[in-house]
Amino acid sequence: MSPRKTIIGMVLYPNTTQLDLTAPYEVFSRIPDVEMHVVSNTIASVKTDRGLTIVPDTTYDTCPSLDVLFIPGGPGQIKAQDDKALMDFIGKYGNKKDCLISSVCTGALLLGAAGLLRGKKATTHWTCLDVLPYMGAVAVDTPVVEDGNVITGAGVTNGIDLALRIAENLCGKDATQRIARFIEYPHASAHPDRVALERLSKEMLAQNPYRQARIEAAERTAKQLGISVIQKAS
Amino acid sequence: MSPRKTIIGMVLYPNTTQLDLTAPYEVFSRIPDVEMHVVSNTIASVKTDRGLTIVPDTTYDTCPSLDVLFIPGGPGQIKAQDDKALMDFIGKYGNKKDCLISSVCTGALLLGAAGLLRGKKATTHWTCLDVLPYMGAVAVDTPVVEDGNVITGAGVTNGIDLALRIAENLCGKDATQRIARFIEYPHASAHPDRVALERLSKEMLAQNPYRQARIEAAERTAKQLGISVIQKAS
Repeated sequence: MSPRKTIIGMVLYPNTTQLDLTAPYEVFSRIPDVEMHVVSNTIASVKTDRGLTIVPDTTYDTCPSLDVLFIPGGPGQIKAQDDKALMDFIGKYGNKKDCLISSVCTGALLLGAAGLLRGKKATTHWTCLDVLPYMGAVAVDTPVVEDGNVITGAGVTNGIDLALRIAENLCGKDATQRIARFIEYPHASAHPDRVALERLSKEMLAQNPYRQARIEAAERTAKQLGISVIQKAS
Repeated sequence: MSPRKTIIGMVLYPNTTQLDLTAPYEVFSRIPDVEMHVVSNTIASVKTDRGLTIVPDTTYDTCPSLDVLFIPGGPGQIKAQDDKALMDFIGKYGNKKDCLISSVCTGALLLGAAGLLRGKKATTHWTCLDVLPYMGAVAVDTPVVEDGNVITGAGVTNGIDLALRIAENLCGKDATQRIARFIEYPHASAHPDRVALERLSKEMLAQNPYRQARIEAAERTAKQLGISVIQKAS
């Protein structure tokens, strides 16, 4: 029997801050044997707060049972709190102790409004840390806060850190380090373990499925551009 | 006469690595007086390499003249090199010295294939640095490389650094620091100038247009959840 996939659902509502969702999506979607879903009221495209439009693939009614629930933040969070279908969807995960409940930025305020942060330590965008106690949560000003099955990330780009932490919980340190190395987070020059990185890099380079095709495409380019001397990369 | 908007166009092709585009989008779209476009062959939705689907708003034919051209990378870059409409679109910016030409990750290989990196210093995803010389470029292994009007970023998350650098070129240090502080990059605890950050934070908090609405929504939550003691955030 093969192990079933890890199912991750990321909620998308109008006026989400898109990077709250897209940054962790990039990490989550690289976890081995993962099934990704972007969940909304309907599968019609959703405009995010600065105009980028994203298409959900499932709805609150049709979404399969999740192993990880993720809620992004953004200006739309205020209105989303009055969206019954969305709040019911979040609320039903309040009793599922085997589901990781996660948020980035003001997404935490939606978890809170659904009652999922009561008595929990949590974080959110720095402009809203003082709003968390209204939901019975204890605000902590760090990039990622884990309390039982609830794991919250601070503002926007902290979603990368949050998702890497969740990846480590799900698939371990080695697989997560591969994801981080691929998305170059943090950049190699700032990496705490450069020796391990060098080793990992060589291994990943040898396995990269696109290298040969890229070299061939580059050779065509060199011909087209009339570049005959191939320089060595510094 | 009011100054005209800064027009930024981000190219989107099938199997783009979505964070290559979405991370800089978040920064670009927060530049004052900016007009954002996601450009593709048609305005039909485009599936990125790990499934996330994004909707372009203009095409290579209808896109207005750009002040900043941005090209993301991803596995789709190899096929995109044979997309004549896309390559022509990039190519026509080769002679526009007043347009900033930018890329993240293997997007640089598309700039290169269009002949825009000849004789330029540039960077790309670490797995492809040795491909750049086929395009007549000099590979440099740093997060962001600027050479004249061509500015390239390394892999995936380096797009945040790239976009902040472009923002600084366009709107100066102060406005860019506000964007960085809003998206929490880097996180406050890692910020090199914590004193300046404190000052900026207080100012931004006072001006935040959503704070009052969030507090009111939170008060309703506290009532619903029966939370009567409002704790202070730590």
